[in-house]
Parts: sequence; C-alpha cells; structure tokens
Amino acid sequence: MRYELYYWHEIQGRGEFVRLALEDAGADYVDVARLPKRGGGVPALMRFLESRSVDRPPFAPPFLKAGKLVIAQTANILFYLGPRLGLVPKDEASRLWAHQLQLTIADWVAEVHDAHHPISGGLYYEEQKREAKRRAADFRAERLPKFLDYFERVMKRNPKRTDYLVGKAVSYVDLSMFQMIAGLRYGFPRAMARLERKHPRLVALHDHVSARPRIAAYLSSPRRLPFNQQDIFRYYLELDG
Amino acid sequence: MRYELYYWHEIQGRGEFVRLALEDAGADYVDVARLPKRGGGVPALMRFLESRSVDRPPFAPPFLKAGKLVIAQTANILFYLGPRLGLVPKDEASRLWAHQLQLTIADWVAEVHDAHHPISGGLYYEEQKREAKRRAADFRAERLPKFLDYFERVMKRNPKRTDYLVGKAVSYVDLSMFQMIAGLRYGFPRAMARLERKHPRLVALHDHVSARPRIAAYLSSPRRLPFNQQDIFRYYLELDG
Repeated sequence: MRYELYYWHEIQGRGEFVRLALEDAGADYVDVARLPKRGGGVPALMRFLESRSVDRPPFAPPFLKAGKLVIAQTANILFYLGPRLGLVPKDEASRLWAHQLQLTIADWVAEVHDAHHPISGGLYYEEQKREAKRRAADFRAERLPKFLDYFERVMKRNPKRTDYLVGKAVSYVDLSMFQMIAGLRYGFPRAMARLERKHPRLVALHDHVSARPRIAAYLSSPRRLPFNQQDIFRYYLELDG
Repeated sequence: MRYELYYWHEIQGRGEFVRLALEDAGADYVDVARLPKRGGGVPALMRFLESRSVDRPPFAPPFLKAGKLVIAQTANILFYLGPRLGLVPKDEASRLWAHQLQLTIADWVAEVHDAHHPISGGLYYEEQKREAKRRAADFRAERLPKFLDYFERVMKRNPKRTDYLVGKAVSYVDLSMFQMIAGLRYGFPRAMARLERKHPRLVALHDHVSARPRIAAYLSSPRRLPFNQQDIFRYYLELDG
C-alpha cells in the first residue's frame, strides 16, 4: 500500500505527526503537496479540498489516502495507521489508550498555536500581539507545566515499566511526544530550559526517539522541513517570558 | 454492562455528548458525580483523578468506566460506545468517518469555549472581556459559518441520501450535532437566527433528534441540566454581535 499524505508543503504543522510515523515505519508514502506540480503540489491538495464529488470531505489538512479510504484529523489518521505500521499494541484497550494520549497531544498543539494566535488564525501575529502576550504568559505558567506533568506521570506509571508512553515498545505517541518537545524547545527555549529538569523521562524519550535510525535519517534529510515562523511552533522573544 | 460516566455535575459541557448517546440508546449508566456523596458525587470523581494507583490516568473529565476499561477524551468515548450502542455503522470506514466528524465537532467546541475565554480558562470572563469581544467577533464572522457550512455540506453529500450525517440511520454524530445547534442558539441567538436560514439540513436534524422518544424524554427530565453561565455554551449580549 502506497499512502498519500496531503498536507501543506512549507510547514511541519499537524502533518508532521503523521510524517514521523510513516518515516519511522519505513512506509511507502508520498507527501503529495511537496511533489512537482505536474500531478502534485499544493494545487493537488486544493483540488481535492474543493472538489464537489468527494462524498466524505475533510474539514482541513492533513488527510491521508489509503486505497479507497480518505482519513482526516491527525489523531484519527494515526489511529488508523498505528496497527498497520506496527506502532501501537494490537489489543483494543491499548489502542484506545494510545489514541486518548494522542488526542490530549492534539489539544496541547491547539493551545501552542493559540499562544501566538489567541484572537484569530486569519490575522497576523502582529495584529494580536498584545493578547498573545497575555495568553502565552498563562500558557507558560499553567498549561505547559500541566501537560508536561501529565505525560511525565503517564511514563512513570506505564505498568510495563519501560521508557515509552504506551506498552513495552515504541508507539506513534512516543514519536509525537518527540515532536512536542522539539517544537516547544524551538518556541519556548527559556521556559523549556526551566521545565525540562522536572521532566527527565520526557527528555530521555525525546533523545531516544531522535536516535532511532529511520528518524535520525529523516531528521537529517531534506524531507524534514525546518521549524519556521509560519508554523504552529514559533519563536517570539516576548512570548517566552 | 453498566457504564459509569464521570463528569462535572453542574454543567452539560463535554460530558453531554456522551450523555446523549447513552440516553438515546437506553443504556444502563450512572452519572457518578451526580450521585449522592455516599459512594458518588464530585468527591468520587476527584478521588479517581488524583489517585496514584491508576495506571492509565485521564487528563481531564469526561471519562467512562466500562468494566475494567477507563476511557477519556469525549470523541474517544463515543468511538468506543458507538458500535456497542448501535449508534454508528459497523464497517471500519464508517467508524473512522464518524470519528473524524466527531473530532471536528470537538475542535468546534473548543473554539466556542475560547470565544468567551480567549486568554485563560483559569480567569473569569470579566478578566478577559475585551479580548473575548475580539475573538467572538471573529468566531461569528469566520469560524461559525465555516463549521456550519462544512456540516451542511456533509449532510448534502451523504451518499445514502438520508437526513443524517453518516450512513442511513442516526449516529452519535447526529446527537452531537443536535447539541451544537442547541448550544449555539443559547450562546449566539442573533448570530444563529441569521445563519440558520442557510443551513436547513442542520436545523432539520436538530428538530429530528430532539423528537426522538428517548431524547425527548431525556430533555424534559431533571437529568438534562439547563444551559448555564458556567458552561461551554454561554450567553453574553456583547459577544453575540
């Protein structure tokens, strides 16, 4: 099965959580919007989003074509891919648990975005900078520690007593947690330097994932887009406290 | 199977999407935090959230106990309950599609909340009223129509040509859409009066769901909490345009 991932071509964004799973598994996939415009590119993505003949249209990218299926919502895509890529235990209870954690990561990602865009995704940062300062201060003081504490606790309580979030082997949730730590370090370097000391398991997980051979190869390849200021994780000095 | 739902006792909130599914199916369930404090009540909810012996702790309510399983994240709970309550088609493609729609509803709910709390859930509305006016204006002008248009389109394109969002019978997504329309009417009566004319299928779905015998019985029972100003859907004159 060749998977087709549809996501914006210039940012990591939410698509990155899917890319990391596909890359770690060595899956056969194409990143459609990053292909040449003959048959691919952003026009191919837009054509699909705007088509009137799609019975089950996505609300927004990312979406994944897998044979006849079209699946949207990042966590839903990973729920589907997880067992097929060997990135989640097969039993229902573990799949639901991994998905629950991924959905909590999705909530966290939305809060990261809103720290710099608290009023509207349709306005520039500069048009909501004052509000962003207030929201980012709350994010750093309340929300960021709350999410980090939660996931550190999840690792500590994993009944398999491993260095992973779910079960006894790496899962797509671990890959996503790597992305969270990496992104938060880019966006909030001072806040993270302070908080990481209290979350050694998450830091170790980040390092462990980044050293996995296929992930290491991906991160040093041109397929890995750099963090940038159009993305969900952004660095603004004034939002880092 | 007697399900145990854990959610705040004084609001509809995210728990209501689960309550509606359990009620429509006539499922055997208890709403734990609304039971007397001897064995239930909010203390029972807090005890579970704060317990150090839970291997797979929820980040936040709602969560559902189903035998030995503890499932959190509203959409995840509905994904689990759907086939068991006969509220989603059984094939994998339809289950993923229903879940995708439910996750889009979850994103919408978060935006409804942030329209009155754009800075922090830990501050009072009055402490972020100025920012809320700006965010709510964007919500009414951009986001609310975008979500309504999307779900109207989904109904129109349902290949089964029914009055439902998914397949040929009612699903938990339809029950959740009823709740969205009802809540938005409470929170944004003027904006909704203007927008409903362009979304006749969603309005008809709302009416159809509210007339289902078990839903009608639930809505007129004391089990249905009233909309109120501590909840996700809130009415503030100045946020309704």
